[in-house]
Amino acid sequence: MRYLLSLLSIFFLNCITKDATPVFKPVPIPVKEVVVEDLNKPWSIAFLSEEIALVSEKNGDLVKVNLTYQTKTSIKGFPSDLKDSIGAVDFGDNAGIFDVLIDPNYNQNKRIFIAYAAEKPNIGSTTKFISARLANDSLTDIQTILVAAPFTQDNFHYGGGMAIGTDQKLYLTVGERLYWENDEPTTPIAQDLNDPRGKMHRFNLDGSIPKDNPLIGKGAIASIYAYGIRNAQGIALNPSTQSLWFTEHGTIQGDELNLLQSGGNYGWPSRTTGKLRSKTYKPPVLADSSVVEPVWYWQHTVAPTGLCFYTGTTFPQWTNSLFVPGLSRGSLWRFKLDEDVPISAEELFLDSRARSRKIAQSPAGKLYLLTDEENGKIIEIKPKTNEL
Amino acid sequence: MRYLLSLLSIFFLNCITKDATPVFKPVPIPVKEVVVEDLNKPWSIAFLSEEIALVSEKNGDLVKVNLTYQTKTSIKGFPSDLKDSIGAVDFGDNAGIFDVLIDPNYNQNKRIFIAYAAEKPNIGSTTKFISARLANDSLTDIQTILVAAPFTQDNFHYGGGMAIGTDQKLYLTVGERLYWENDEPTTPIAQDLNDPRGKMHRFNLDGSIPKDNPLIGKGAIASIYAYGIRNAQGIALNPSTQSLWFTEHGTIQGDELNLLQSGGNYGWPSRTTGKLRSKTYKPPVLADSSVVEPVWYWQHTVAPTGLCFYTGTTFPQWTNSLFVPGLSRGSLWRFKLDEDVPISAEELFLDSRARSRKIAQSPAGKLYLLTDEENGKIIEIKPKTNEL
Repeated sequence: MRYLLSLLSIFFLNCITKDATPVFKPVPIPVKEVVVEDLNKPWSIAFLSEEIALVSEKNGDLVKVNLTYQTKTSIKGFPSDLKDSIGAVDFGDNAGIFDVLIDPNYNQNKRIFIAYAAEKPNIGSTTKFISARLANDSLTDIQTILVAAPFTQDNFHYGGGMAIGTDQKLYLTVGERLYWENDEPTTPIAQDLNDPRGKMHRFNLDGSIPKDNPLIGKGAIASIYAYGIRNAQGIALNPSTQSLWFTEHGTIQGDELNLLQSGGNYGWPSRTTGKLRSKTYKPPVLADSSVVEPVWYWQHTVAPTGLCFYTGTTFPQWTNSLFVPGLSRGSLWRFKLDEDVPISAEELFLDSRARSRKIAQSPAGKLYLLTDEENGKIIEIKPKTNEL
Repeated sequence: MRYLLSLLSIFFLNCITKDATPVFKPVPIPVKEVVVEDLNKPWSIAFLSEEIALVSEKNGDLVKVNLTYQTKTSIKGFPSDLKDSIGAVDFGDNAGIFDVLIDPNYNQNKRIFIAYAAEKPNIGSTTKFISARLANDSLTDIQTILVAAPFTQDNFHYGGGMAIGTDQKLYLTVGERLYWENDEPTTPIAQDLNDPRGKMHRFNLDGSIPKDNPLIGKGAIASIYAYGIRNAQGIALNPSTQSLWFTEHGTIQGDELNLLQSGGNYGWPSRTTGKLRSKTYKPPVLADSSVVEPVWYWQHTVAPTGLCFYTGTTFPQWTNSLFVPGLSRGSLWRFKLDEDVPISAEELFLDSRARSRKIAQSPAGKLYLLTDEENGKIIEIKPKTNEL
């Protein structure tokens, strides 16, 4: 009996020791699985729950999607000044519905934020940001936060990205709304602090201007937070450092990842890591010390869009990585970071590229990708099973 | 007593169940640690044991290095026709000692293989491959395997990579030895089956020609295995698939990863994913079906060199990945593969670039990088410890 007890104790102690040493486990291989399709160029996704999400269609509606049953419900009451790209004649018409964001206090106030291209008939369009109450699949109590006037004929570079910082402020991106640099005024749009375009804006969640915005009293539009930004579509919060990161489309190459700095000048069009379209354009000179350099830029065009930070553990090799999808080469990029410094850059899914506008993480940590096509898809990135 | 036994049995069964489920463990973060320095542009490394390695210096000697004690011993008896780059006037002189390889039967025959630039005074240089017996830190019984005549004045594109396949054959790369495409003869060097340059060669380990070489009897030099290769420095065996992979330097971009096919035409100079230096050069036209496409090419110049497949498990996120270092941007690339198809491409160590000629795995699975500089280093890539 004492011998038996000793044996069992040895087994027991052995188990305790084993529990203290994690066992080697191969990392999961990621694969893509289509969860929902037949969305009209989905631009953004915002999760009301693990199963229900709002999806903005570039060429269509704001849609409520059930990811389990794949049902879609168009949200009613969308503002009538929406300019979309349906039937657009021009190649590359950028108009439509852009980012959608859930208010942090949604459970109490049922409010959401939406960015879209708004038009004035016979005049033109620009980027507009609203908040609204979502009730019975309808938008009510719509409030305008920002209209990036003037309305112009150009259908490009609306920006339209949104994020909420740890300071509980709303950050909004507006593109500079031009195609050719030679169309710039003497003071380029993105550099002009009296023009809301080519900028990052910062608002309180109720749409008022924060008193601590960095350029107040400096001859600038009060909502401007940063400037010199050509066309940023993606902005996201790094939960590890509390910094905000944004992507920026360059012209010929020049695609960048930027760290948002209060009052920062991101240099466009005087500074770019790429080349200009208008070969004869001579932008004003900016002193090196006045410009914020990108934390990363690509050597080739990827057209980076709606980025997100992954905090899940299903893919332990990816925990705390930054994901950036792209349009032109259908790439998905993953950056490993040391604080706010990229230390590796990985292009994933080389053999199954998909032109993408957004990557997002669900409340429970699943990764979803939105494809920019007429039969637009929500794709889940999940671990491969039954490995042969 | 029965109660106590039941309790202990429950603990025991619980432990068995726990042992069956691996515990989540975050993947290690890689850091670089200099192991040996003051090598003169180290080009390649071959392990005689976990601790002792042969290192070829581009600008110097064949050196025996003790990785633990950091001692270096120059190997005596190197052929006197070595052309190195010491004191080279020309920028970018590519001459020197290239790859070094240990014979699979080294324990019995003490033989090694060496590639280097050999010269004939007043005539020029070319790539030469020898085998030799290593005894008392000296080379003896030197046998010539291949001299890639003619000897010419150009100091570029020697190739010089070597690998042994699972067929126990020796594969050797010879560059096309030109700088300007306009210097090509009517039949470009790499396409000319009667010219050993711009080629992959295949030999028996004793230096004789394998009877099953693919171009025997086709009006070609018998040792030629593949052609149309501009300048390949790295060739390595994929242990998972038994395929041979090689890197190839393009001109302006055009850097490639290729899968070696018997008798394959890799297309240079008629085909490139980059651009030519000589803008007026018109290469002969090749039919699509006759050319082997690269499995991967870079959108920008990385100048890829001595690649290797990692089979260790210290970095489980990297097991079975392919590593490719580069010269021009000091990058280290990691490719995840599905069989012989790249599915992701990652650039590592963005914040600590190092111009590199070679990455290699020691017998026990450690990863080492060789830097191409006058104070050349052997760097170990190891897991970061004491994470803050």
